[in-house]
Amino acid sequence: MNMQQYFMPVRVMCGERIVSDQSRAVASFGKRILLVTGRNSAKICGALQDVEQVLKNNGQIGVLFDQVMSNPTIDCVYEGARIARQEQVDAVIAIGGGSPMDAAKAIAMLAKNDLARADLFSGHYPNGALPMIHIPTTVGTGSEVTPYAILTNEEQQTKTSMSSPDLFPKLALLDAKYLEKLPARSVIYTAVDALSHSIEGMLTKKANVFTDSMAYQAISMFSETLPALETRSFSYADLERLLRASALAGMVIANTGTSVVHTMGYSFTYFKGIDHGCANGLLLGSFLELAQRQLPERVGEIVHHLRMQHAKELTACLRGLILERPSLTEEEIDFYTRQAASSKKIQNGLVAVSADDIRRMFADAAER
Amino acid sequence: MNMQQYFMPVRVMCGERIVSDQSRAVASFGKRILLVTGRNSAKICGALQDVEQVLKNNGQIGVLFDQVMSNPTIDCVYEGARIARQEQVDAVIAIGGGSPMDAAKAIAMLAKNDLARADLFSGHYPNGALPMIHIPTTVGTGSEVTPYAILTNEEQQTKTSMSSPDLFPKLALLDAKYLEKLPARSVIYTAVDALSHSIEGMLTKKANVFTDSMAYQAISMFSETLPALETRSFSYADLERLLRASALAGMVIANTGTSVVHTMGYSFTYFKGIDHGCANGLLLGSFLELAQRQLPERVGEIVHHLRMQHAKELTACLRGLILERPSLTEEEIDFYTRQAASSKKIQNGLVAVSADDIRRMFADAAER
Repeated sequence: MNMQQYFMPVRVMCGERIVSDQSRAVASFGKRILLVTGRNSAKICGALQDVEQVLKNNGQIGVLFDQVMSNPTIDCVYEGARIARQEQVDAVIAIGGGSPMDAAKAIAMLAKNDLARADLFSGHYPNGALPMIHIPTTVGTGSEVTPYAILTNEEQQTKTSMSSPDLFPKLALLDAKYLEKLPARSVIYTAVDALSHSIEGMLTKKANVFTDSMAYQAISMFSETLPALETRSFSYADLERLLRASALAGMVIANTGTSVVHTMGYSFTYFKGIDHGCANGLLLGSFLELAQRQLPERVGEIVHHLRMQHAKELTACLRGLILERPSLTEEEIDFYTRQAASSKKIQNGLVAVSADDIRRMFADAAER
Repeated sequence: MNMQQYFMPVRVMCGERIVSDQSRAVASFGKRILLVTGRNSAKICGALQDVEQVLKNNGQIGVLFDQVMSNPTIDCVYEGARIARQEQVDAVIAIGGGSPMDAAKAIAMLAKNDLARADLFSGHYPNGALPMIHIPTTVGTGSEVTPYAILTNEEQQTKTSMSSPDLFPKLALLDAKYLEKLPARSVIYTAVDALSHSIEGMLTKKANVFTDSMAYQAISMFSETLPALETRSFSYADLERLLRASALAGMVIANTGTSVVHTMGYSFTYFKGIDHGCANGLLLGSFLELAQRQLPERVGEIVHHLRMQHAKELTACLRGLILERPSLTEEEIDFYTRQAASSKKIQNGLVAVSADDIRRMFADAAER
């Protein structure tokens, strides 16, 4: 059966000063609010101050949990949930990139479910989650519109995804102002992550006309921003375009999931500490070239929306954008390949990927 | 402020046998279900039988309200709500085109709110609405993914729209099988309605990158189906494409609303009994030509996705598809023009439309 599904219940609101403009909506989330952020970024970009001002004006009480690290751990989310319960918060506001936004989802769920660690990734959360507002401050994760929370899983030696409709935020507030102090490198890596979501999403079995429409739009918007990405200098309009493209790409993977690029990238991040978007960008070009050999028509559409002629151009383009490359030993490549080849995510893809393909993509991504 | 919003919380599931495949989801809606349909179409297409079978297998009880006429009246939805209360139903399943789907929304809301007729269109429904499943059996309305219910309003001598997030169904089940017995004329008129949603939606002030992505996709899918529409003969793939395009177009107007074409079309339907999609199709070409003079770049994109060069080609194309034309007296044109020019919907548009423009579009639509 040719089943297609689309579901993305988050209310997405975008624009300058959207946080203060939506203060009444924020007020409706309850009296006591847990603010989940990383150590610095939410303050540096000004979003935390805007949220605190809104809470103050509304007579709401904010409880700050600013202990989310990059690639948040299971310990971190249990600690956040402990505070949420202790402080008896009614809702969660997440401010940041993928790490605080994903951690906030796990915290909002654990605040309502007394769950053993073994059941954390089960996707069955009988009491749902506290209502959430997500405020992204990078342009890549799309977490504000997905039902996923990706945590570092020491036991599995990789990053593992929680997935449940309960993890959708109620509201996403997108203001490009919060991106203006983001280092160019972070803009580039997160934008490449969003591109990876669009492209990988289109090449999964769950892709459909609903997700295709958003993927095409996000890819076109990435392509439109390419000159700025290449010169590493962004106007407000560029940042706004990337922020919205990132949400569109998130709406794609909310329905399609990701596949081999994300799976492989998790090894780079877990073992080599490589930034998530960078890890995907190191692999995305080779993957699209492989896909083009198997699905020339579909990849032709992707390449067309990139305003390119061939997947090889994307590889070259990403080489120009991503200047760091990991050094990998043969043993490392073997180990990562075994790990990626055994991942269920790969079966989600439309592209047949062998262990040899994975090995070659890892080798292509490495320093020569 | 450049505020943009996207919200469409319906879970959309498409595919062959989707109703029986989703029997467990149907079971979760409760014990007693009101089935809202027109007099015949839900039976002729087989959807009613499929739903009744699922209810029977699930041990659920279906209560049939098959009294919805084309362009449902306020009386009709109050009567449906009376039955919903009397039968103490837990949920509503709508099967049909726009009329049963819209009526079902009003019924589901009125079943939970003891509302005076004067407050029916207020948009404030304190107790929300019964949960709904919508099963479209035409390819135009998009009602399965919108927060609108449009009723015949005798007092205002037009059709009036109820709008509230409470009116979004929980679930939309799309199976192109239910379209196979639809007369070619109905396929064409409802497909033209969906095209009108995409085009009008793109030319409203609320249009944004999220709705644009869906509108482009829906327009491309219409264009891809044009040969079948012209020959009035549809393969299963054509019907499936139109059904999904219609949902995409519904997702557009769920966020943008419609504007002058729908407003004007309501007069044709109210006073002349012209089918809703036909009414829009009689006006859409002239409207796009007017828009092209004011917004050549944006309309250029629309025309490009239609695989056309100029809006005039759409006018010609619609003249080929829609063979009936109303005869209008000068007095009628004057009266309709005054009515349309005073509608709030017109302010929703990006295109400046004068009373003279409206008069000319009505005259262009009339029999010569």
